[in-house]
Order: sequence, then C-alpha cells, then structure tokens
Amino acid sequence: MPTAAIVGGGVIGSAWASRFLLYGWDVRFFDPAPNAEVVLNKVLDKARRWVPQIIDTLPSEGSLTVCRELSDTVAGADWIQESTPERLEIKHAVLRQIQAACAPTAIIGSSTSGFMPSELQEGSGRPEQILVAHPYNPVYLLPIVEVVPSAVVPEDRVQRAEANLRDIGMKPITLRAEIPAHVGDRLLEAVWREALWLIKDGVATTEQIDDIMTHGFGLRWAQKGLFETYRTAGGEAGMKHFLEQFGPCLQWPWTKLTDVPDLDDDLINLIVSQSDAQAAGRSVSELEDERDANLVAILNALRHEDRAAGAFLNQLASVEARQ
Amino acid sequence: MPTAAIVGGGVIGSAWASRFLLYGWDVRFFDPAPNAEVVLNKVLDKARRWVPQIIDTLPSEGSLTVCRELSDTVAGADWIQESTPERLEIKHAVLRQIQAACAPTAIIGSSTSGFMPSELQEGSGRPEQILVAHPYNPVYLLPIVEVVPSAVVPEDRVQRAEANLRDIGMKPITLRAEIPAHVGDRLLEAVWREALWLIKDGVATTEQIDDIMTHGFGLRWAQKGLFETYRTAGGEAGMKHFLEQFGPCLQWPWTKLTDVPDLDDDLINLIVSQSDAQAAGRSVSELEDERDANLVAILNALRHEDRAAGAFLNQLASVEARQ
Repeated sequence: MPTAAIVGGGVIGSAWASRFLLYGWDVRFFDPAPNAEVVLNKVLDKARRWVPQIIDTLPSEGSLTVCRELSDTVAGADWIQESTPERLEIKHAVLRQIQAACAPTAIIGSSTSGFMPSELQEGSGRPEQILVAHPYNPVYLLPIVEVVPSAVVPEDRVQRAEANLRDIGMKPITLRAEIPAHVGDRLLEAVWREALWLIKDGVATTEQIDDIMTHGFGLRWAQKGLFETYRTAGGEAGMKHFLEQFGPCLQWPWTKLTDVPDLDDDLINLIVSQSDAQAAGRSVSELEDERDANLVAILNALRHEDRAAGAFLNQLASVEARQ
Repeated sequence: MPTAAIVGGGVIGSAWASRFLLYGWDVRFFDPAPNAEVVLNKVLDKARRWVPQIIDTLPSEGSLTVCRELSDTVAGADWIQESTPERLEIKHAVLRQIQAACAPTAIIGSSTSGFMPSELQEGSGRPEQILVAHPYNPVYLLPIVEVVPSAVVPEDRVQRAEANLRDIGMKPITLRAEIPAHVGDRLLEAVWREALWLIKDGVATTEQIDDIMTHGFGLRWAQKGLFETYRTAGGEAGMKHFLEQFGPCLQWPWTKLTDVPDLDDDLINLIVSQSDAQAAGRSVSELEDERDANLVAILNALRHEDRAAGAFLNQLASVEARQ
C-alpha cells in the first residue's frame, strides 16, 4: 500500500488523512496541537459515514499511525501533504524539516490557499519536489484539487501527482501559471467582496444572498460552470455572438469591485446577527451534516445521470478499476 | 383560472409562458418577432418534458393564446410579464402601451436584469403597478426570482406578487433596496470579470475554470450559499471568529477587481476557441438537455433529502396544496 504523510491537522489536514485512508492508503499523521487527534477522529468519523455512500466499492481502509515526530511521519512516505497555518515563514520551516527526512522521490503537496509554489520552494535544495495541491472543504467529499507546480517541477512528477490524486477519488486541475490564490479562491474572493457591499449597503441579508445562490446560479454551477452555462444560454447564435453582446455590460457601474469594503466591527456584527437568524438555532455540527447529506445526494444524482455526469463517472470509475 | 400576459418572448419570455401554463394559469402571449412562436414552442416542449419530473402532481395545463395585439394580450390579465430588450426607451414605450390597456389592479413584472424599478416607473401614471420580477435561465426549472418593488409599490401588492410567484413554483426574494442589476447578477458579474482576467492572463482555460466550479464550490452553492458555507466551515469557533480572520485577506492583491478587462477581439476569440474545445462537438441543444437533466436530478435529490431540502420541499408542497 502507498503511504501518505499528513503534516498539520485541523479540518483540512484531517480530511486529507481521512480521504487517503478511505481510499486504501496507509497514513501517518503529525500535528503537535493538543487537540489534533480529537479533530482528526471527528473528521474521520464524518468521512467514514459519507464517503461509502458515493463510492460503491471502496478498498479496505488503510492503517493510521499518529506520530510524535515529524521525521518519523515523512520518512519513506510516497505523498506528503502539508496543511500548516497560512504564514510563509511557518511553511518554509516545516518544508525544511520535511525535506530533511523524506525521500527525494516523494511528492510534497501544500494545501496553501494563497502562496505560489515558487514562494514555497524558496531556499529549498530540492524545489522540484514541492507543489501546491489545494483542496476545498469538505476535502473528503469535494473532488476538486488545484495542482500548481512551478517551472522547476518535472513533467513526470506532475503526472505522478495527478495519478496519486485520482487514486484517492479527486479531480486534479493542473494550472500551468503561478498566481496568488490560484483560481477558485480568486473567484470566491470576487463574490465575497461584492456580497460584503450588498450587506453593508442594506440591499440584501445573508439569507437572501444565500437563497439567491442556492435556488439560482448555485444549481447551475453544480453541473455546468460559468463558460458552459453561457455557451448554453447563448443558444444557436453561438458563443462569439453572446460574448460580443456581453462586452458593454462590463462598463456598467454594476459591481462595486473597484473598492475594497472595510470589514469593520459594524459590518462583522451585522453579518453575524443575520447569519445567526439564518441558522435559526441549527448548530455547526447540524449544518455540516446537512451539507454532507446534500453533497452525497447531489453527487449520486449526477453519477446516475447518464449523459452529463461524465466527469464524476470517470472519477469514480477510476477508483473502482483499482479494486 | 388566473391569467398571465407575456409581453416579449425569446428564451426568457417563452419560459415564463411555459411556467405559467404548466402550473395551471391561462396564458396570452405577444411578441411581434416573426420567429417568436417557433421559439415559444421549442421552450414549451422542453418545459413539458422536464417540469413534470420535479413536481409530482401538476395541475392541468392552462390554455395558451397567441395574440396579435398587445392590448388584447394584457386586457383583464392578473399578471403581466414584460421581457423586452434591455433598453430603457423600449421598456418605457412597452410599459406605456401595457398600462393603457391593462387593469389597474394587475401586477406588471419586468424581467429586466439591469434596471431599477424606479427607472421603469418613470413617467408612468400608475407607477405602483410596476415592479421587477427577475428570473434566471432556465426559467421553467430554476426556482429563484428577484422581486424589487420601489417605495411606491404598496405592501399588499408586493405580497400578492409573492403569492402569485409561489403559485407557479418559484421562490421570490424581495429586495427592499433598489440597485442596478439587483443581487444575483452583481455576484455573477464579479465572477465573470475575474474569470476574464484568468483567461486573458493564461492562468486557466474555460474548461479548467468550469471544472473547478462544478467539482468544487458549485457543489456547495447548489445547497448552501456563501454565508452558510462559511458559517459551517468556521466550525465551533463561530461566525465572528471566522470573519475576524477573514478581514486582512481582503487587502491582499488576489483579485484583479480594480481593473475592467478589455473584452477585445483577441480575448473573445481565445474564449470562443477554448469553449469550442470544451464542448467537444456537443450542440447547444445537447448542452441544454444535459443542463436540464442535471437540474432535475439535483432538485429531486434535494427534495428527497429530508433534512436540508426544506426550501425546495416547501416550495413544491405549496404547489401541491393547491390541487
């Protein structure tokens, strides 16, 4: 069995560990935080509950070892996933310790949401071993992972990284240009900024914005992204005609994108109170269960939908082929 | 049976007509364009195929009358839906003709994606009758509709509008502040602008951006919006703690929101060629069928998911209660 080393737990690292385990990898886990194992077990319980509901024939679960030393964790591992706090000096220090103990052939993936691989590789004697492998929460269910190598990572290593990620049921998207925050989080930040303005200016509440998303374009984007949606909406006149119409709109003063809203105490308190009202007493644990039950239902709905679920079907088929 | 008058066809107006018909309203339809009936019948065929798959007990379909005169279309109608081109002088002229012939008690909804209700009401003798009712494509399946009255629309009329929209299976979100492009399209434009930069700068292709959406945050937003997703991700530490961490990120130079990308011929051609590659020969009609089959599958998955599909269940229950 291949072995994954998880360096840094929390919600993200623990979910990486759970995904590797459930897809049959052996896992070694390291996080010096006192509650790290509690979080790991909580996330692993959730993953064990939900993942078998979207994969018909999972392999036997791998073995889990919680390590006391980082060096024991990474020695001999095939994949090392770093999920430490989002501060470059911390990541540099951890990567240095990892590389002092791991095999030169191992792949080191970083969960960083913001840093570029060349930043992570600074000062490393083996930069070709480090790449970004940025997942999305909940990592045990959402298939997406952004892979960002820099120019120093050889192509065969990139392909091995992609194969490893497919092996644990993920859909790697490899970005050939480095950019802070990669792709998904840039799109999310654009939405977030505009949403903050809408709240701050009293145009809509958090619940109204969420309802417009979940009953509108969220339903589109669960199955066709921005461009394929517009291609479809453009109709027989074609994408070029559609785009040529779109141009002028970008000059309209719709979005308040040119300003950064000040996320001050007043705005934080407004969002918190609206979000409390929206939750209507549901705990975060209940919200997590709702989210995961819905994700399972949607993934299965798309899996069983012959024509359009190709991507999901291919993903799951590749896992099943390994049995 | 209540009667809806559809003024202006195309994809949007025809889908409004289809939705009203399938939910049991009588419909009068007016569009002077030579191919208007062809488009209407095409959209109606699709709606007849898909809508019964998400509603267990639809009422009998209403009767459809295609009118030659605008005045015959709107006389005596309970709801008039205007879906003419997005130019204010056209909308003013059409609204003037509508109000010359319709009952003062009727509700006039405009499908405008950009204009504010007070702009539409300019120069009208009965401005209190006009409001924005902005739907999302495909209108026969997506439940969302943004209702924007201005201050001159009385509350009982707003409530009647909401009840009418619920009667045809929609989820009205009433916005109490006017703003160009309302809420959903502002969020969409924010994503669109950032996506254009990512394409233009060669960071990702249309297919990669779409894959990151459909295998990542699109799956989240089909069931929980931006704020509830972050509330959930924030964990037990709470929304306030989560927001306080988020603040500094907004100062990071992640998004290129401060500039408007120039959607010039080069960028249009780049997007078109990437979109062609992504479609891999599938026609727009095939893409529409994929989209609708997926939407039906997702809506049913959420409907049958006890805990979290409250909103959808409530919607569909309200339709069924009317039988």
